[in-house]
Amino acid sequence: MARDRRGIFITFEGPDGAGKTTQLRLLAQFIEQELQVPLVTTREPGGTPISDRIREILLNPQHKEMVSETEVLLYAASRAQHVNEKIVPALNRGDIILCDRFMDASIAYQGFGLGISVEKIIEINHFATGGVVPDRTYLLDLPEKVGKQRILKRNAGDDGADLDRIEQKELEYHKRVRFGFHQLAEMDRDRIVRVDANRPESEVHEEIRRDFLRFFQQNVGPVSSD
Amino acid sequence: MARDRRGIFITFEGPDGAGKTTQLRLLAQFIEQELQVPLVTTREPGGTPISDRIREILLNPQHKEMVSETEVLLYAASRAQHVNEKIVPALNRGDIILCDRFMDASIAYQGFGLGISVEKIIEINHFATGGVVPDRTYLLDLPEKVGKQRILKRNAGDDGADLDRIEQKELEYHKRVRFGFHQLAEMDRDRIVRVDANRPESEVHEEIRRDFLRFFQQNVGPVSSD
Repeated sequence: MARDRRGIFITFEGPDGAGKTTQLRLLAQFIEQELQVPLVTTREPGGTPISDRIREILLNPQHKEMVSETEVLLYAASRAQHVNEKIVPALNRGDIILCDRFMDASIAYQGFGLGISVEKIIEINHFATGGVVPDRTYLLDLPEKVGKQRILKRNAGDDGADLDRIEQKELEYHKRVRFGFHQLAEMDRDRIVRVDANRPESEVHEEIRRDFLRFFQQNVGPVSSD
Repeated sequence: MARDRRGIFITFEGPDGAGKTTQLRLLAQFIEQELQVPLVTTREPGGTPISDRIREILLNPQHKEMVSETEVLLYAASRAQHVNEKIVPALNRGDIILCDRFMDASIAYQGFGLGISVEKIIEINHFATGGVVPDRTYLLDLPEKVGKQRILKRNAGDDGADLDRIEQKELEYHKRVRFGFHQLAEMDRDRIVRVDANRPESEVHEEIRRDFLRFFQQNVGPVSSD
């Protein structure tokens, strides 16, 4: 498949509770209102019918016996379908794609979090994506305890029984995941923008919006209404 | 996980229609009647609840849009769970495991059949299995046209609409798969036994039974009733 990469591929990363879904939606609204560029919003795991079926297996709370290798391979399988069926065609059309999580999440969660070799995860994900990498990534950074509190609040009144399989994992794991995200941001400063998510969502949006607009103007051209 | 490998891991490979399921059942009956060793029979994709869920995605005839990379990764994900949850514990208990298909099928079908790099498939499968390899593999060899005819007969009276997604693929693909199995058998003569499956099932069973008994006696010890 030809990959002209005329579009722009933006991902949102960070822990559950950091506000990725909200920030993606706010940036999508801004793009729809201010820019004359077709927009695709999507998420991982999922994004296509086959990927959504894989997502169901991954997030099913009954699948407690799932081994780490299976988890890595299922995320990669979901991603392979998503990239080939949805992201590459959108890039080739020249669209902007906003995606909730991508391969950085696999490196942080399965690599740093579960202790699987980061090198192996990168190899497997390179096979899955054919080398497609985001143009810009917003890492919504949050102390792990704040993320946990936000999730408990979201599922208000329960004792944690409704948390999905990933969310049930212990706080130590989430500390390793956060460390992993920080390492990734250090290693790829040109792509990953670390945003303090422990602030009101309007402030977080303002920072992302400003950065995105600068990135868009540098890579595509001036925005008429600006 | 400790891997003492006290058990014996036997796989059956070959095209659909070659009689793998029948031959596995016949050998299982022989082992149960003649040998005092616990037996596990299983199959891929599948073999555990999570792997069976993955199998449903792989074999769903509606999933025509599935890309080859997704297929490779889903087979590997199913295998990772199967090896860790079922095969390694059985080997550590000292059981005999008879398994319908394993990683040779991925190399033959996705590698030779779909044209995916064999090296990548081996890498990904090594990650999935942690290096677990069958002790002995019976490759039921059959001209691709005979296999096709047997499958059509099995689904007698239909026009092919009931064939699953894999079975619908064209004959050229099955020729490449057969060539792949032959290459594997050439490269690993100590493990893979090529059996002519274009014969009555009792003759095929007799050849497998004889080979298995010799292998068992060499690796475990004499059989009392023999």
